[in-house]
Amino acid sequence: MSYNTFGHMFRVTTWGESHGPAIGCVIDGCPPRIALSEADIQPFLDRRRPGQSAFTTQRQEPDQVRILSGVFEGQTTGTPISLVIENTDQRSRDYGDIAQTYRPGHADLVYDLKYGIRDYRGGGRSSARETACRVAAGAVARKVLGEGVSVRGALVQLGPKDIDRTRWDWAEVERNPFFAPDAGVVEEWAAYLAAIRKAGSSIGAVIEVVAEGVPAGLGAPIYGKLDADIAAAFMSINAVKGVEIGDGFASASLTGPENADALFMRDGALEFGSNHAGGVLGGISSGQPVVARFAVKPTSSMLTPVPSITKDGAETQVITKGRHDPCVGIRAVPVGEAMMACVLADHLLRHRAQVGG
Amino acid sequence: MSYNTFGHMFRVTTWGESHGPAIGCVIDGCPPRIALSEADIQPFLDRRRPGQSAFTTQRQEPDQVRILSGVFEGQTTGTPISLVIENTDQRSRDYGDIAQTYRPGHADLVYDLKYGIRDYRGGGRSSARETACRVAAGAVARKVLGEGVSVRGALVQLGPKDIDRTRWDWAEVERNPFFAPDAGVVEEWAAYLAAIRKAGSSIGAVIEVVAEGVPAGLGAPIYGKLDADIAAAFMSINAVKGVEIGDGFASASLTGPENADALFMRDGALEFGSNHAGGVLGGISSGQPVVARFAVKPTSSMLTPVPSITKDGAETQVITKGRHDPCVGIRAVPVGEAMMACVLADHLLRHRAQVGG
Amino acid sequence: MSYNTFGHMFRVTTWGESHGPAIGCVIDGCPPRIALSEADIQPFLDRRRPGQSAFTTQRQEPDQVRILSGVFEGQTTGTPISLVIENTDQRSRDYGDIAQTYRPGHADLVYDLKYGIRDYRGGGRSSARETACRVAAGAVARKVLGEGVSVRGALVQLGPKDIDRTRWDWAEVERNPFFAPDAGVVEEWAAYLAAIRKAGSSIGAVIEVVAEGVPAGLGAPIYGKLDADIAAAFMSINAVKGVEIGDGFASASLTGPENADALFMRDGALEFGSNHAGGVLGGISSGQPVVARFAVKPTSSMLTPVPSITKDGAETQVITKGRHDPCVGIRAVPVGEAMMACVLADHLLRHRAQVGG
Amino acid sequence: MSYNTFGHMFRVTTWGESHGPAIGCVIDGCPPRIALSEADIQPFLDRRRPGQSAFTTQRQEPDQVRILSGVFEGQTTGTPISLVIENTDQRSRDYGDIAQTYRPGHADLVYDLKYGIRDYRGGGRSSARETACRVAAGAVARKVLGEGVSVRGALVQLGPKDIDRTRWDWAEVERNPFFAPDAGVVEEWAAYLAAIRKAGSSIGAVIEVVAEGVPAGLGAPIYGKLDADIAAAFMSINAVKGVEIGDGFASASLTGPENADALFMRDGALEFGSNHAGGVLGGISSGQPVVARFAVKPTSSMLTPVPSITKDGAETQVITKGRHDPCVGIRAVPVGEAMMACVLADHLLRHRAQVGG
Repeated sequence: MSYNTFGHMFRVTTWGESHGPAIGCVIDGCPPRIALSEADIQPFLDRRRPGQSAFTTQRQEPDQVRILSGVFEGQTTGTPISLVIENTDQRSRDYGDIAQTYRPGHADLVYDLKYGIRDYRGGGRSSARETACRVAAGAVARKVLGEGVSVRGALVQLGPKDIDRTRWDWAEVERNPFFAPDAGVVEEWAAYLAAIRKAGSSIGAVIEVVAEGVPAGLGAPIYGKLDADIAAAFMSINAVKGVEIGDGFASASLTGPENADALFMRDGALEFGSNHAGGVLGGISSGQPVVARFAVKPTSSMLTPVPSITKDGAETQVITKGRHDPCVGIRAVPVGEAMMACVLADHLLRHRAQVGG
Repeated sequence: MSYNTFGHMFRVTTWGESHGPAIGCVIDGCPPRIALSEADIQPFLDRRRPGQSAFTTQRQEPDQVRILSGVFEGQTTGTPISLVIENTDQRSRDYGDIAQTYRPGHADLVYDLKYGIRDYRGGGRSSARETACRVAAGAVARKVLGEGVSVRGALVQLGPKDIDRTRWDWAEVERNPFFAPDAGVVEEWAAYLAAIRKAGSSIGAVIEVVAEGVPAGLGAPIYGKLDADIAAAFMSINAVKGVEIGDGFASASLTGPENADALFMRDGALEFGSNHAGGVLGGISSGQPVVARFAVKPTSSMLTPVPSITKDGAETQVITKGRHDPCVGIRAVPVGEAMMACVLADHLLRHRAQVGG
Repeated sequence: MSYNTFGHMFRVTTWGESHGPAIGCVIDGCPPRIALSEADIQPFLDRRRPGQSAFTTQRQEPDQVRILSGVFEGQTTGTPISLVIENTDQRSRDYGDIAQTYRPGHADLVYDLKYGIRDYRGGGRSSARETACRVAAGAVARKVLGEGVSVRGALVQLGPKDIDRTRWDWAEVERNPFFAPDAGVVEEWAAYLAAIRKAGSSIGAVIEVVAEGVPAGLGAPIYGKLDADIAAAFMSINAVKGVEIGDGFASASLTGPENADALFMRDGALEFGSNHAGGVLGGISSGQPVVARFAVKPTSSMLTPVPSITKDGAETQVITKGRHDPCVGIRAVPVGEAMMACVLADHLLRHRAQVGG
Repeated sequence: MSYNTFGHMFRVTTWGESHGPAIGCVIDGCPPRIALSEADIQPFLDRRRPGQSAFTTQRQEPDQVRILSGVFEGQTTGTPISLVIENTDQRSRDYGDIAQTYRPGHADLVYDLKYGIRDYRGGGRSSARETACRVAAGAVARKVLGEGVSVRGALVQLGPKDIDRTRWDWAEVERNPFFAPDAGVVEEWAAYLAAIRKAGSSIGAVIEVVAEGVPAGLGAPIYGKLDADIAAAFMSINAVKGVEIGDGFASASLTGPENADALFMRDGALEFGSNHAGGVLGGISSGQPVVARFAVKPTSSMLTPVPSITKDGAETQVITKGRHDPCVGIRAVPVGEAMMACVLADHLLRHRAQVGG
């Protein structure tokens, strides 16, 4: 990962600002002769798209993706795939406040400290709008992985509220506006988040992403470990502050015997007794489901005032008006899936390079 | 990070197996005219070195580092710095068991699944012995960062046992065998870990690394974020299962107002009211201390038997004899510091490339 | 250089096919606060643009560049710069022949051998149209280098016909359709090339690129040598078969004393007695003008029939109708300049990373 | 290629100075389960080794290579292969002259200009001694390529003296001290080079490297073209000033019909009528032999005095005493072969990543 590109053999470069004419990405290294059209990508963008429930920003973006290169007669050609999404709802307004005042917790301040300049309109490059490009790339990565690999995400914690894992139902994820896998929490979460929004506040969340069907052997020790790349990929998503694989931080409290994933033979094939490891051993996939989570902080774009300073160094109070998600973690679910898919596709190709097959 | 190299402008490539003739690393991109000798590196290796307390493996390795290139008359020359550490205590013994049987939780199995071959002696490439090279590279990175930047780590959780943060004392870290910053836990931890060891078990831990004096502006959005690189660097350490920045997973439970780091002016300079962000905003350092943590699982090398299989697919029970750390998290403290130092040095150079200064 | 990206700190990724909707590039790592607009780029594209003389293809492409990101209020922001050029003159026609038959010397055959698929329309990805993106990137690179560095190219050989170097005049380069620096050859070259075209043939050329004002110290031994990167950059241009620095192949015939560039002091400053080395010593710029050349083969797109085969393995004869340059080397002049500018800008940033300002 | 590493999937990092304790390299990404021992590498080092004829430097270095990692029980394991060669003949002497005075044409000056420091002993990092590591890596690359691919080099021009290509005999290359493929030139070259040496002078050369058995499809457009990588690899060799593929610079003087490599079918298989392209079309191997050449300048280490300056800016005259090759191009033959082998191995793995086996 470097600047605006990630991946080694399946490489994704994204570009664009929230309120520029468009955003987009270039995917390089995609294998040839994979069936691909906009229709393969659009559903994933639609899933991430804002304005679909009361719990996400009301900005209306159709997020229509166009393929500008790399596909010929419905198939990838092995050349770079350029995807573009126009920005259509750059609401014209006065950016005077945001231009002159730093929002605590935002990247505003550090972009100025680093570059001495920033495109302040809608957060510019640091806007979560950039994640649409990740989702588009993730859709292509899924095609590379093939139908045998599934990558699914869910919201497993909204603020302090957990799901009940015994009720986990992947089908439920698509039925509620939280991507929650537990139907039992939906009503409570809706009330809770409505109150957060009404209070002009915001709240964090935890997302879990599970990849099933991942072949054993993906991952490149020592510094290209599969879980290290997943960690970086997740941590690069806006507002993410923590990442874990398998039992993650909970494993710190476990003893060796509690944490051990025993090995058995079942009908001539390897079988694991448990999956504390989250499908990754020594940085390499074991054939078990790859399970990873990431924590999203509450957005600092909120109506609650916070002490801040202006560009000129005067103290002030900041509230962020506009159309913001009270829990940015919700829309991070498809983004997390996409990053997982991209990392896996990249490692599939990297593994093939060194070991073949 | 790719295979056995990490970093972009300050690049570290490590090599070597636990029971081969030597391990080592090549550091490329180090700025010229930095005073450097073995004496700058050795103290950090000594800190990580096994056999120094009852709570780490009794393997005796002097871990004497030699500089083979890149330094002339006591100064770096800008050419690659080759560091080598001989393996001296490769205890000769029968590796029959370990060669034929997979240790649950170890990389044994997946190396075979990936490569179809593995150097089983002492864990081969996947041995924590590799981390000595990271520590050596970290010592060089500290020289690049200069005296204005300090990078310090501490064990903040041993198994289920936390420290009391109100008693945090960096000086204490060097006084106890746990790198614990809280003198109040040492006695209890000693008894607890002795019991774990006696039971032939093992336990996990959480390490916190704090970098102070880091200039604002380090980090390269979007896919070279400082925290994304820290996450990957920590996750690449053996047995690490989780990484967090600032409040990390706890921030998922916070509201926006609780999580906000207010901005003030003090004597004409920017001042933050708190550091929930852990010194990183939008992937870029803010000038506050960079605070990150990682969770280490309990080692699966233990005397407690676990169901496993042989290379030939027969079921068996495995216990791992030998000289193992009951808590590998302890010796991960200097390793975590080293990784943080390397990431910061790399970003210092990357920042200078794009923005100057 | 990897797939469709080149450069390390000033990174250029290009995408697009000759007859797709558009071509473009993403420039990543550009320093912030550089004044930049389409007007800085367009003149270089206009110079490369086809259809401007009788000696280049009559395809009419306005090659209007649009900046889609990375520039705010007239200045670069440090975020990726996305440039797009629409394809407007994809003449609709029957591609039946070209789709089924391999043109000897073209990339048609090997794209099929490698990928099992190719976009045959107008050469697809392998079309020289891609070089428009290089020229656009080169214009940005020039801004990074600043006004103190000039990068200029000229055609020094057209087929077997050399220029007279004693008449070298940079101003002349802009006055004739060959980018020839010697007014004395223009008439003869015009007649010669008209005859080549009339015969349905084509011819090769040699281009020289000179960069003046390059600071000493750029270049990264051993595998990031300035001249190695120039060689790769030139060799990546369509139809290039040879690259040389300074005296190049002629230096093989020289003795040491003939080839030596003596060093003197003039008014307290270093001065060289000659520049056989072409401004690069040991892979590092010396402060002298960087002088490099590349050889372009005759295009195989010509009306002269050549034995070939069809996709189905039948023997046939191929002639390439359409709008082709009789000497593709002419329009390679601005492309060569652009590649030199990009390599220098990249090394300027890389040098700054390691050694500072 | 970046700093001291080259290759993407078959990555080689070299380190070490001419008069340090050792030189070496780390090869990362090598496929597993390839039979490898020192005996596979040593013969290639012996071929490059100095002191073997009157026409190369009399420095005596046994150049014994040791494998320190990455090989287990005679097979590669997929982990990094560390190779080390000790420096044994660092003749102790007074380096006063060379430390204070710049040798025109050497890298001395620019290392000081770039880094402000240099290891002047024997040329330090810029010494051709570094090429021993390339040769060692090349031996491993050959194993990756397998027995079906041969990579052979020859000296085709010594100063102004060409070989007669009609007498080309690969077997002859191993029989004379010039690696000349034409027995008819050996006597004349011997007399010529003896005279050059006696005069305290030096001379350039041209080396041709031919790879046969290269599968079609290797090479990654647009910026990872096979010939672009070969060009960079050759240009990175000490003293190289020019590189060409196939007909190279001669193709600039050819017409399209003269340069065309016609395609035919012979017994159901593709056959080319000629190989002007040198086995590479559009940056991708065609299945024909890959043919490339590079020009080596005369070494500036010679007894003939040249005007120069001291580190302190005083004018002086320099002659380089010591044990130098009168034609460094001779020993560049095995180095060129090694670079070709490494580039091909890298592209073999890269191709496999994207397109499969």
